[in-house]
Amino acid sequence: MQYNPVETVRQSIRSISDWPKPGVTFRDITPVLQDPRCFRMLIDIFVARYMRQRLDLVAGVDARGFIIGSVIAYELNLGFVPIRKKGKLPFETVGEDYDLEYGSSSVEIHTDAVKPGQRVLLMDDLIATGGTLLAASRLLQRLGANVVEAAAIIDLPELGGSKLIKESGLPVHALYEF
Amino acid sequence: MQYNPVETVRQSIRSISDWPKPGVTFRDITPVLQDPRCFRMLIDIFVARYMRQRLDLVAGVDARGFIIGSVIAYELNLGFVPIRKKGKLPFETVGEDYDLEYGSSSVEIHTDAVKPGQRVLLMDDLIATGGTLLAASRLLQRLGANVVEAAAIIDLPELGGSKLIKESGLPVHALYEF
Repeated sequence: MQYNPVETVRQSIRSISDWPKPGVTFRDITPVLQDPRCFRMLIDIFVARYMRQRLDLVAGVDARGFIIGSVIAYELNLGFVPIRKKGKLPFETVGEDYDLEYGSSSVEIHTDAVKPGQRVLLMDDLIATGGTLLAASRLLQRLGANVVEAAAIIDLPELGGSKLIKESGLPVHALYEF
Repeated sequence: MQYNPVETVRQSIRSISDWPKPGVTFRDITPVLQDPRCFRMLIDIFVARYMRQRLDLVAGVDARGFIIGSVIAYELNLGFVPIRKKGKLPFETVGEDYDLEYGSSSVEIHTDAVKPGQRVLLMDDLIATGGTLLAASRLLQRLGANVVEAAAIIDLPELGGSKLIKESGLPVHALYEF
C-alpha cells in the first residue's frame, strides 16, 4: 500500500454511537489529536491545500475550530481570529444568529479582527447543518473580508450543511465524509 | 533597544476596562493572535521554554487554551489533549468540579487521553483564581499523568491563582503579570 496520510488519519477518527443523542453516531477526532504523528499529518494535509493561496488570516470557530485553525494559521505564517459564542469576546463585536434544531444560537467576532479585502480561511472541525459556518461567514463578510473557503475535517453530507454553504456562493472543503 | 520578542508581544496585549464586569480590566490577547508575527513570537517563546523537556503531551483548557496549546503541541511534535467544560467530550470521561465566584463549574477529560507516566504540559491563556487549572491538573493526575508545569500567557497575581497552584506542588509559569 502507498503511504497515504489522509487514510492514516481517517483510521484514527473514532465513532461513538448514540452521542450527543440516541441514534446519532459522533465522529471523534481526539484520538487523532493525541497521537503526535496523526496530529501532524492532519495539519499538514490542510497546510498543503492552502500554502499557495495567498491567505491573510485563518478564522476558527469556537471551540474545536480553534484547535486546528490556530495551528494552520501558525504554519502558514498567518494571523488567527477567533469566532466565539455570544458574550465571550471582550472588545467591540458584531454578531449573527443561526437556527439550531430547537431554538437559536449566536456567534460573534471583534469588529477589528479583519480588514476589508483580507483573504480569510474559515475553519471548523465539522460541517453538520452548516448553520454555524454560514453565520461565521456572514460575520467575516460584514467586516469586508474575502472568505476564500469554509473548511472542516469532517462533513456529514446527509445533514445538508455543505450543500447549503456551497449554494450561498462560498467554496467549501472537508477532508472526510461520514 | 535590543530585539525582544517577549516585550514585543506584550505591547500587543490590549487592556479592556470594565470587562467582564465593572472595575475589572481584561487583558485581551486577540490582537497578538491576529498579527502573524506576534502570534509566531508568542508561540516560539513557549516552544523555546519546553523544547528540551521531553514532554509527551500538551493539554489545553477549553477554549482559549486550545488556541496556543495546540500550536505548541504541533511545534514540539507532541499530541494535544483537550480538557473541556462538562458534557462536551463524547467518549468516557472523568470530571472535576471547581468553585467560581458564584456557584461552581466542572471540567472533563477523556479517560484514555493520557497514559500513566506521560509527561504533560498543561496550558491555558490566563491564570486568575487558578480554579480551572487546578481542576485540570487533578484530572491529569487521576489518569496517572506527570504534570510537568501549568503554563499561561498571563498571570493576575492579585487573584492568588498562581500562588495556589504553586502551593499544590505544581510548577507554574506565566509570561506576563498584570
